Amino acid sequence: MKIKKYKKEDIYSYSLGAFPTIELIKNKKEYIISIYIHSSFDNLEIIEFISKNISKDKIIHDDKIFKILSEKENVYVIGVFKKYDMNLDNKDHLLLDNPSNMGNLGTIIRSSLGFDIFNIALVSSSLDYFNPKVIRASMGAIFSLNIEVFNSLKEYKNKFKEHKIYSFMLDASLELGKFDFDKNLITLAFGNEGSGLPSLYHEENPVIIRHNSLIDSLNITNAISIALYEYRKNR
Amino acid sequence: MKIKKYKKEDIYSYSLGAFPTIELIKNKKEYIISIYIHSSFDNLEIIEFISKNISKDKIIHDDKIFKILSEKENVYVIGVFKKYDMNLDNKDHLLLDNPSNMGNLGTIIRSSLGFDIFNIALVSSSLDYFNPKVIRASMGAIFSLNIEVFNSLKEYKNKFKEHKIYSFMLDASLELGKFDFDKNLITLAFGNEGSGLPSLYHEENPVIIRHNSLIDSLNITNAISIALYEYRKNR
Repeated sequence: MKIKKYKKEDIYSYSLGAFPTIELIKNKKEYIISIYIHSSFDNLEIIEFISKNISKDKIIHDDKIFKILSEKENVYVIGVFKKYDMNLDNKDHLLLDNPSNMGNLGTIIRSSLGFDIFNIALVSSSLDYFNPKVIRASMGAIFSLNIEVFNSLKEYKNKFKEHKIYSFMLDASLELGKFDFDKNLITLAFGNEGSGLPSLYHEENPVIIRHNSLIDSLNITNAISIALYEYRKNR
Repeated sequence: MKIKKYKKEDIYSYSLGAFPTIELIKNKKEYIISIYIHSSFDNLEIIEFISKNISKDKIIHDDKIFKILSEKENVYVIGVFKKYDMNLDNKDHLLLDNPSNMGNLGTIIRSSLGFDIFNIALVSSSLDYFNPKVIRASMGAIFSLNIEVFNSLKEYKNKFKEHKIYSFMLDASLELGKFDFDKNLITLAFGNEGSGLPSLYHEENPVIIRHNSLIDSLNITNAISIALYEYRKNR
């Protein structure tokens, strides 16, 4: 295959960097097309890990791809993989309505994995979660959990009828840390950094993360991490 | 004065955007040199707020500065202010050892303000906290708290002898959320995103934010927000 700059409609994507590529190998080996190693890369431990896990004909020593794909970042290992479909398990979920930023999405995926939520619903989202920027910001965490896109909250609720949805909003009566999450299946829902959750989420179970009035709101990735941290303590 | 691209050694800096500039006016009016309003800016409420608080001769309608300072971002209001010195109050502190990123620093400042820590020590840091990028990422929160630079932990401890320092590290015995912070003066200390806190912080009171082993570590701004959230609940 010919390597070119990534586009959303491509059937392949790339893990840029040794760390995300190791996660790709550990978790989604079956979708790997090839692994590129830069001629100046000399971390023997990682080279050995790749050799042990990936057949020789898929390991390519060619520096050209790094110029095409990695721009100015320090990238010495690249994984090429076929994009795959995922479906959410019937476990607890994180739901992001209209997320706006690929770097943030990657950071959120990493926190979600670390705090035991392995299923992420993207609602009303046109974000391309397989964009290499998301993968890199997630440090490869994306290869260890499920992401599924829904056109609307309604569509999500039709598929997951049992989940109790906690909507994180600024006007809410429940305060994070002062109640216990439902013992059955739950969903933690967050909106867009600029606009928050649409008002229809008021009909779910609104929750606020209390802070003083000196700031308008928390950064979205920080707010989600706090909720996930409290979730893991509560579970 | 002649407006030019910001440099660290300048005695002036800039708040880019209406929101950070409003915070500048509310909190540090005495250092304002001038406020620039773009000709296409039509938010009457904000224009009125500026007119009420800033004398006419300091309000400048000139679009050139926006091309010089704001690059591609949507900025329609800019505040020019004289940089000022700050000293930490003898209250609880956040301490950042060798922070590496200006956007992150701004986000951390915003969370710190929202969770009631109004004094931030920068240790072994060459970061320019008055860089417009920090100010913008803080959404102007920087104008509501104190920042002071120390050459070393030793220098910090010489000045603030009473503070009990909690060092957030990956190898720690105390687990956040499972103990109460000391009732007297405390400091929450965090290291560089890549390298963490230097080992001499082990001699303070190491704390870990528990997550599963599927990720190596949390994003630094997320980790700090979680600690600040828990701090505010605990205070």
